[in-house]
Amino acid sequence: MTRIHISEVGPRDGLQSIDRVMPLEAKKAWIAAEAAAGVPEIEVGSFVPPSLLPQMADTAELIAFAKGIEGLSVAVLIPNLKGAERAIAAGAEKMSIPFSMSETHSLKNVRKDHAAMVAEIRAIAELVAAQPAETRPHFEVGLATAFGCTIEGPVNEDNVVRLAAAAIEAGAVEVGLSDTTGYANPAQVKRLVRRVKAEIGADKLNTLHLHNTRGVGLANALAGLEEGITTLDSSLGGLGGCPFAPGASGNIVTEDLVFMLEAMGYETGIDLEKLLKVRSIIAEALPGEPLYGFTPDAGLPLGFAQVAA
Amino acid sequence: MTRIHISEVGPRDGLQSIDRVMPLEAKKAWIAAEAAAGVPEIEVGSFVPPSLLPQMADTAELIAFAKGIEGLSVAVLIPNLKGAERAIAAGAEKMSIPFSMSETHSLKNVRKDHAAMVAEIRAIAELVAAQPAETRPHFEVGLATAFGCTIEGPVNEDNVVRLAAAAIEAGAVEVGLSDTTGYANPAQVKRLVRRVKAEIGADKLNTLHLHNTRGVGLANALAGLEEGITTLDSSLGGLGGCPFAPGASGNIVTEDLVFMLEAMGYETGIDLEKLLKVRSIIAEALPGEPLYGFTPDAGLPLGFAQVAA
Repeated sequence: MTRIHISEVGPRDGLQSIDRVMPLEAKKAWIAAEAAAGVPEIEVGSFVPPSLLPQMADTAELIAFAKGIEGLSVAVLIPNLKGAERAIAAGAEKMSIPFSMSETHSLKNVRKDHAAMVAEIRAIAELVAAQPAETRPHFEVGLATAFGCTIEGPVNEDNVVRLAAAAIEAGAVEVGLSDTTGYANPAQVKRLVRRVKAEIGADKLNTLHLHNTRGVGLANALAGLEEGITTLDSSLGGLGGCPFAPGASGNIVTEDLVFMLEAMGYETGIDLEKLLKVRSIIAEALPGEPLYGFTPDAGLPLGFAQVAA
Repeated sequence: MTRIHISEVGPRDGLQSIDRVMPLEAKKAWIAAEAAAGVPEIEVGSFVPPSLLPQMADTAELIAFAKGIEGLSVAVLIPNLKGAERAIAAGAEKMSIPFSMSETHSLKNVRKDHAAMVAEIRAIAELVAAQPAETRPHFEVGLATAFGCTIEGPVNEDNVVRLAAAAIEAGAVEVGLSDTTGYANPAQVKRLVRRVKAEIGADKLNTLHLHNTRGVGLANALAGLEEGITTLDSSLGGLGGCPFAPGASGNIVTEDLVFMLEAMGYETGIDLEKLLKVRSIIAEALPGEPLYGFTPDAGLPLGFAQVAA
């Protein structure tokens, strides 16, 4: 049975996209409850400066808290070398830097062109390599706007393949493909996953980060699975988006994704009944915030037998 | 380029699931606007007795109206032989009868067991065969609850294969697979499409009727496409459901489906910009009615180039 690794990104991608700040205690309750439901990895925050994203100011505290949960992989987003230093100091187990395939988006988002980003990735990789093996975080590069950009429009696939190789050459352990803008379609997902895997090695691209902006998110996930993707980012209740990519709201919904995977016979290790109950923590902490997903309302099919976790 | 045939079922499956009756003029405006956007087939209503479904009382008038639209295939749902007689009298070009794979659901829905349903299909097929060739409607059997039933739970796939063959043997031109309850997953869709095609002939199963009850509808559509499905039922704004299958609300959304197909390079013949504008007709005629779909809010991706219709 194939194991699919779910990385919950709601506490980072979800919460950074809304103006309100979720209280630290609510974040902890969310993380603890999702881990207890069997979610194996949670991106708990990011080391973007609090002046830009006050929602993420408690990321170091959340790392410390989440590391106390047995079996949970604790991930964070970092925007640059300084973020990497803070992530390492805080004890993050996985760090991911977004590398925008649209140079215009990269310049607008982090004021760096592609060459400067590759240099930054190299500096971070060197910092990571200098850490003792037992505390060295896993370093991944997320190829953002890989399927299209709200500023540039279509993104050249040859460039994505080339920049994926550049990120690996600069020292990233692996890359992921991110549909930051919700532009992807299943044919494109298949084609690009296949091309990038062929270029950098099948084991160096495992992750898709998808949004459900046009309702096609789970179809894109399916397309990725069929090309050997084994890690999927998603957000409980579909919270999420990119504040620098207008209209790019909503990661794929963890609840619906886990339903699909478990129904198909994939093993996620997640107890879906328990997962569905976690949603109330967000609803209570952020009253009125729109939550997405269909399985929470519909419930599980009669006689639905989950794969044993 | 592969052509995918979209059959809009909102005026039937959508409207029968809500209590309010859409005025005849609004239905006509909806049908005309969707046909003008290039939708090639519309299920305009059903010949269920008006005492049961007053929302469908004007089906004969809608057939007459829709037949005046050039190039549009005019479909209706029929529950039984009497419905078939009325559909033929009204000039329907395509008739589809739901044949529930769950015998419990069939008994509850139309008070017929499987044997009685096969007899009914045979009687209808004989009636159809007796019509002059130029006005003979296309007769399809929709294998309802094929992926699971809200009363029985899981539905035996061997039975679905056997009953599909029985429907063809009884004279149906083709069968379709219907996820009436929104229980389907992509692995099951692939398996069942493959098995039914192998049993009755690949050209006798072309259609999937999917609901988005658990958010997996477009992933299921993708799975069907990969197994040679060429016709997809969907509903504008995701209106729809089965009044006899609780929680089974919401066909897959025509807007998002057409976005996915056109983005993938399939040809639908539908102008997506025009299609998105049709939604306002439903919103105005049924104020407050929830409409689903993401593409209408998000808009088309920057630089999105549609396949020429």
